[in-house]
Amino acid sequence: MTDFDATRALFDLPDGTIYLDGNSLGPLPRAVPGRVAAMLRDEWGAMLIGGWTHAGWMTQPSRVGDRIGRLIGAPAETVTTGDTLSIKVYQALAAALDLVPDRRVILSDTGNFPTDLYMAEGLARTMGRGHVLRCVAPEDVADAIDDTVAVLLLTEVDYRTGRLHDMADLTARAHAAGAVAVWDLAHSAGALPVDVAGARADFAVGCTYKFLNAGPGGPAFVHVAPRHADAVAPALAGWLGHAAPFDFDPGYRPGRGVERMRVGTPPVIQLAALDAALDVWDGVDMRDLRAASQALSQRLIAGVASRCPALALASPADPDARGSQVSFRHPDGYAIVQALIARGVVGDFRAPDILRFGITPLYIGADDIDRAIAIMAEVMDTAAWDDPANRRRSTVT
Amino acid sequence: MTDFDATRALFDLPDGTIYLDGNSLGPLPRAVPGRVAAMLRDEWGAMLIGGWTHAGWMTQPSRVGDRIGRLIGAPAETVTTGDTLSIKVYQALAAALDLVPDRRVILSDTGNFPTDLYMAEGLARTMGRGHVLRCVAPEDVADAIDDTVAVLLLTEVDYRTGRLHDMADLTARAHAAGAVAVWDLAHSAGALPVDVAGARADFAVGCTYKFLNAGPGGPAFVHVAPRHADAVAPALAGWLGHAAPFDFDPGYRPGRGVERMRVGTPPVIQLAALDAALDVWDGVDMRDLRAASQALSQRLIAGVASRCPALALASPADPDARGSQVSFRHPDGYAIVQALIARGVVGDFRAPDILRFGITPLYIGADDIDRAIAIMAEVMDTAAWDDPANRRRSTVT
Repeated sequence: MTDFDATRALFDLPDGTIYLDGNSLGPLPRAVPGRVAAMLRDEWGAMLIGGWTHAGWMTQPSRVGDRIGRLIGAPAETVTTGDTLSIKVYQALAAALDLVPDRRVILSDTGNFPTDLYMAEGLARTMGRGHVLRCVAPEDVADAIDDTVAVLLLTEVDYRTGRLHDMADLTARAHAAGAVAVWDLAHSAGALPVDVAGARADFAVGCTYKFLNAGPGGPAFVHVAPRHADAVAPALAGWLGHAAPFDFDPGYRPGRGVERMRVGTPPVIQLAALDAALDVWDGVDMRDLRAASQALSQRLIAGVASRCPALALASPADPDARGSQVSFRHPDGYAIVQALIARGVVGDFRAPDILRFGITPLYIGADDIDRAIAIMAEVMDTAAWDDPANRRRSTVT
Repeated sequence: MTDFDATRALFDLPDGTIYLDGNSLGPLPRAVPGRVAAMLRDEWGAMLIGGWTHAGWMTQPSRVGDRIGRLIGAPAETVTTGDTLSIKVYQALAAALDLVPDRRVILSDTGNFPTDLYMAEGLARTMGRGHVLRCVAPEDVADAIDDTVAVLLLTEVDYRTGRLHDMADLTARAHAAGAVAVWDLAHSAGALPVDVAGARADFAVGCTYKFLNAGPGGPAFVHVAPRHADAVAPALAGWLGHAAPFDFDPGYRPGRGVERMRVGTPPVIQLAALDAALDVWDGVDMRDLRAASQALSQRLIAGVASRCPALALASPADPDARGSQVSFRHPDGYAIVQALIARGVVGDFRAPDILRFGITPLYIGADDIDRAIAIMAEVMDTAAWDDPANRRRSTVT
C-alpha cells in the first residue's frame, strides 16, 4: 500500500494553503531545489561542455522518458522527453497522418484542450493537402469514427470537466475503421493508471508540470508504439533525432525508434527538476493513487452537494468516468474562485463558468478536503465572493 | 570602455581550465544559481500557480526577448524566446515560405549547421508542395540568389570555420531577387555586433547557451521584422501564441506581432537562468567586445602559426571575415583536442578534421591565450596526442 503521509512529506507547500490546482501546476517537490543546484554547480559549472557526456545530459531525455513510461504503461525505450506538449502534439499528429496518407479527417472533440486543436489546424494548413479538423461533442466521438477518419486526436481527461474517455475502446474503434489514435495524457499521467500499450495507442503525448510536478515549463513527453517507431519520418527533423548527431551529416537519417522524436538541444535544467520530481513516484502504486483520488473526490462532491447547493457538479458523477479533478459550474465562477484563493483554497476557473479543483493524493488528504468544503460553504453562505475586487477578469488564471 | 576584468569576475570557471568552448556551451555565470534557487523557492514554491501572474512568468519570454534584442539590433517587442533553435528555424522558415508562395527553392550553404538543413528538409516534406533545399558552397551563395529562390536560410557564422557572412549584403541581394532572408545567429548573438534591423533581415533566430551563457538547453529566440509580424500565420500555432490564450477559444487567432511565435508553456526555470545570464551584458559595448575578440583571435592565430606549424588555419585570416572563434585543421584533430582537454585547454572537434576554439572576452584574456598556445605547442612538439586513449572517437564531443 502506498503511504501517502510519506509522499506528502516530499512536498513543500505554503502554510495555510489548500492546494487544489495541482492539475494545472504541481507544487515544488522538496528534492528539486537541491537537485537543480547540484546540476548547476557540479555539472554545468564544473564539467562545462563535458556535461554532455560525463553527466549524461545527452541521454537524459530518454532515461527520464523511461521513468514516465512506467507511469503510463509504455514499454522501455518508447518514451522520450523535451519541447512542449504543443510541439509533441504536432509531431505525433504529423507522424500519424503519414500512416494514413489517403484520408483527410482529423477527428477530435470540443473538450480537447485548445492548443491541441490549434496545432492540428496549423499542421493541416502547413501540409496544404486538404486535411480538416472535425470536432464533435465528447459523447459523440465513438459514433463519429468512420472510414474517412485518418487520425483520432483526443485528450483522455477533459481539462474542464474531468470526463474520462475510454482509451482502449476508442482506440479499438479507430483501428477497426482504419484510423490511428493519438492520445494526449496531459491530465492523465500521474493522475490515474494509464496503459498505453494495453490500449494499443499509436502515439501518446503529455506534459510534466501538472500531476508530475516538474515545475513551470517542464519538458513534455512523447510515446510512439514500437510497431510504428521505425516507420516514422519526423516532420520536426532536428539534429538530436538524427541517427548520429555528431557526424554532422548534411542529410537527415532518423535515429532508432522514439529517439527520432527528439528535436533540438534538451532543456537540461528543467530535466534535472523533472528527474527529481519523478523520485516522488518511486513506490507509488497507481491503483492506490486512483483509489485515494476517487475517495477524496467523492468526499468533495458530497460535501459541496450538501453545503454549497448553488455549485452544480460539472464533472461526471460516476468516479470511473472522471480523471482526478472535480469541477462545478456557477455563473459567478470566476469571482467565487478568487474569493476562495483569498482564503487559501486554491482552485482555478475556466471560462465560461467552470470552477476546477485538482485532486492529488500525493499531497492532499481528507482533512484538506474537509477544510476546503468548510471554506467553500462559508464563501457561498455569506456571498463573500460578491465583491467588486473579484469581478475583474484576469487574463491569466 | 567595457571592463572585461569586471565581466570575468561574473563567471565561475574551474581552476586550471582555459575554456575555449564558450561557442558551444557558455560557462556558469555566478548569478545563475542564486536566481534559479530564488525562482524555485520564492516563485514556484511560494506562489504555486499564482507565479504565472505574480512572478510574471507569462510575460517573461518577451521581456527576456527584448534583452536579447538589444544585443542583435532588434527593436523592442520584435523578439521572443522559448523552444529550441531547431523549432525556431522551422517556424521562421515556414513563415518565410508563406511570404513567397509562388517559389519553391530554399537556398542555404554547406556551412550551415546540420539541424537547420534537417528542419528545412522536414518542413519541405511536410508541406508536400515541391520545395527543394539547394545548398551551395558558402562563397557561392551570393551568385546563387536568383528569381527561383523563395527563402535564403543562412547561419551568419559558420560553426566549423567561423567564416562570417555579410548579412546586410546577402539580405539586400535576396530582397532584390524577390526572396526573403532567415538568419541563424547561433554563433553571432553575444559574439559580435549584430544589426538585424539595419540589415533588414526578415527573420532571425538563435540560441542562448553559447555566447549568451544561459546553460545547457537554454531557450531559443526568434525575431520577426515588424513589417512581417502581423502577416505571419504561424505553422506552430500554439496556445501561448494565441491572441487570448485564456479565453480557450476553439479556433486559433494569432497574437500581436512576434507574440504569435510563442508556442507552448514557457520553460520558466531555464528562463530564470537565461535572465540572470543576460545581466552580464549590462554595460558591455559590443564594439569593445568585438575589438577584444579580434585581438585575442589574432594572438592565438599568430602564436599557433609560429609554434604549432602543423595546425593549419581553417578560419579566414581576415579578422573582419570571422565570427568569434578560431579553427585549425589537422588529420589527427580529434586526438589532439583530447590531449588538450586533458591538459586543461578545452576546445572541441568537428568532423572531419577541425579543431575549434571559441574566443570569449567576457571571461578569457590574453594570459589565457598565451597559456593555451604554450600547452598546444607542448602537445604538438611531443606528439602527446598520439596515444591510443585519444584515438577512440566519442559520439559526443
